[in-house]
Amino acid sequence: MDAADTRSHLRVVLVSPRNPLNIGAAARAMLNFGFSRLRVVNPYEVAFREARSAIGAHEILQSAEEFPSVAEAVADCALVVGTTSLGHRELEHSLHRLEKGAALIREQLHTWPVAVLFGSEKFGLGNEDMAHCHWLLRIATADHEHSMNLGQAVAVCLYELSRGALDPPAAAPRTPKPAKAADTEQITRLLLDVLGKSGYVNPVTAASTENKVRRLVRRLDLSARDAPVVLGMLRQILWKLGTK
Amino acid sequence: MDAADTRSHLRVVLVSPRNPLNIGAAARAMLNFGFSRLRVVNPYEVAFREARSAIGAHEILQSAEEFPSVAEAVADCALVVGTTSLGHRELEHSLHRLEKGAALIREQLHTWPVAVLFGSEKFGLGNEDMAHCHWLLRIATADHEHSMNLGQAVAVCLYELSRGALDPPAAAPRTPKPAKAADTEQITRLLLDVLGKSGYVNPVTAASTENKVRRLVRRLDLSARDAPVVLGMLRQILWKLGTK
Repeated sequence: MDAADTRSHLRVVLVSPRNPLNIGAAARAMLNFGFSRLRVVNPYEVAFREARSAIGAHEILQSAEEFPSVAEAVADCALVVGTTSLGHRELEHSLHRLEKGAALIREQLHTWPVAVLFGSEKFGLGNEDMAHCHWLLRIATADHEHSMNLGQAVAVCLYELSRGALDPPAAAPRTPKPAKAADTEQITRLLLDVLGKSGYVNPVTAASTENKVRRLVRRLDLSARDAPVVLGMLRQILWKLGTK
Repeated sequence: MDAADTRSHLRVVLVSPRNPLNIGAAARAMLNFGFSRLRVVNPYEVAFREARSAIGAHEILQSAEEFPSVAEAVADCALVVGTTSLGHRELEHSLHRLEKGAALIREQLHTWPVAVLFGSEKFGLGNEDMAHCHWLLRIATADHEHSMNLGQAVAVCLYELSRGALDPPAAAPRTPKPAKAADTEQITRLLLDVLGKSGYVNPVTAASTENKVRRLVRRLDLSARDAPVVLGMLRQILWKLGTK
């Protein structure tokens, strides 16, 4: 597989972007670095329309896909990575500096789709968005008070992802093919049903439990081969809990 | 000399910038990556005034210095480097890709001031501007028709300049502590009980199912932190199945 194919495996996902200039800047950085698949989750509609109709808006914006939720935007991806430029809040996830994280993403991109999520300009990614991520990527800035501008963060990430080695690896040993995000999410939902029916979920803390379970399921790094087995187990347990 | 002093040796020089948003974006990237000395040559005056008075404009913009010519803007620098994201026109100069060029700049920054020049949005650096440069820096983009956005080019260059050597070494990556084998086995047994009570296990193939489940649980690579959570879930499910 050549570098162009590898690049087509990347989905740049903007979550709740608010500023048309930033959406345009993200698309321009993609054009510069040879990436093409832009996805937008729950954008401020006026901004998205404006970005698409801007003078000089190119094919990447025209073909950008819109989704109502992160789950749907990453459903076909085997690896989902969130970005953050600040230091707090990441304690629930493993965190890689961009240099290392980009190398990990490059390895996967040769074989299957990877989503990289960028949060809204004001708030970054929320806990619920992050719960869909396998791990987080941090751009090592010197300043921990001010987040990076969205378009600049996208440019820096794509620059690092393009670094040297988008060329095929030298016959690297293959890790098992990871489960798609859609299957991982289905497992999460079934497990939440099972836990709900078992009385494990306290209604008062249900939302926080849901995020915890979602993150836990991502940490399992299920393979494409194991995912249907786990789904089968959960369906059987759920059926049994229901028959009583 | 520590990293902060080293950074204070860099002068980011914008030559003939036309758009206040780009001037602001360059300043924001400097803030993010810990650089402070912004110089502007022959700006479009309205743009420069507007950038300085923008809401959220910070000290870097307030203290930016204005010069009528490149010669004056780089007068105190021992090394002057021009940037370009396109391929033509550089024949008169030696050209380094950003990765290599940033390493050369870092070496010099420890000792004396270095200027990095960015050209105007439309035309980049002119031949006269380049004549002041010792060599040129090129950001290796995939696309040779479209130049990079000014603010994004500044961000990518400062990111690369900040790489590794300007900083104390990164904290060790957090790889989670793995669960003990005893806990993994307890999870296996509880899961087998749950599957048995749910009717998932066919008595004829029970022995083979047990091995499959055991291997599957090992492939999950549970962490020491997640193991008790999973144990708690399974105990609750098992209890619920038993009460029926």
